[in-house]
Amino acid sequence: MDNSKILIRVAEEKDCPAMMTLIQELAAYERAAHEVTVTFPHFVESGFGEHPVWWSLVAEVDGKIVGIALYYIRYSTWKGQRLYLEDIIVSEQWRRHGIGSMLMDEIIRIAREKKFSGIMWQVLDWNQSAIDFYAKYKVSFDPEWINCHMDL
Amino acid sequence: MDNSKILIRVAEEKDCPAMMTLIQELAAYERAAHEVTVTFPHFVESGFGEHPVWWSLVAEVDGKIVGIALYYIRYSTWKGQRLYLEDIIVSEQWRRHGIGSMLMDEIIRIAREKKFSGIMWQVLDWNQSAIDFYAKYKVSFDPEWINCHMDL
Repeated sequence: MDNSKILIRVAEEKDCPAMMTLIQELAAYERAAHEVTVTFPHFVESGFGEHPVWWSLVAEVDGKIVGIALYYIRYSTWKGQRLYLEDIIVSEQWRRHGIGSMLMDEIIRIAREKKFSGIMWQVLDWNQSAIDFYAKYKVSFDPEWINCHMDL
Repeated sequence: MDNSKILIRVAEEKDCPAMMTLIQELAAYERAAHEVTVTFPHFVESGFGEHPVWWSLVAEVDGKIVGIALYYIRYSTWKGQRLYLEDIIVSEQWRRHGIGSMLMDEIIRIAREKKFSGIMWQVLDWNQSAIDFYAKYKVSFDPEWINCHMDL
């Protein structure tokens, strides 16, 4: 298909339902659909309420949202403010069209523009296709850290 | 020593120099002193400027800052807003007085008060004393994720 039909733009509030659909699609791919417990109103409020804590790009084809790249600001006491790329998702039927790279390139541009010291994210150690995708960039991989969480 | 002499309180701007000293101490312990490239003005601005992106507790003994617990808001597309505990540090000569537990307990109280869905952090896989400390709480450990970063 013609890449000129793919539009990368900043997410708006009206995109939230389509974004949530993609988030649930990724969770199913990561074998964790049951882990998505966030509510839709909380998702919208967190992105477009009085004190936003997330921002996102969307990839649009013919008016349909087929990809997102959602981030928040991480504060590293070593490196200062960094862009934490929470999710980069392309709908399964729209892969292999370069949409992931277009989203990633725009994320890098935004991070530079906002003077973040870098970009961080995580990848599952068995998700080889994602690891291969990221390895095309100048990325450091660090498996030495263990994630810890306490649900409240 | 008498625990009643230990005061846990919210960090103020005047605490920043002592906090930065503790951050550098931890980096040295983690064999990464050279990795601390954040500037002091950026640190202060990020915590106490117009749009704060970090918040912190301090542990004080006789007017001296001997510990910190610094966090930011993570947005999980699965779990919503979570408290991301970036650093919990107790100065080496003040360990084994329960200060880490006092900081952790107050972090948990704040996370509940602010209605965060949980608390997240990371630990280095060789830092057994930290892993043992966290294991006293109802914590899930997940080594399946690889950290990725791109410095800009």
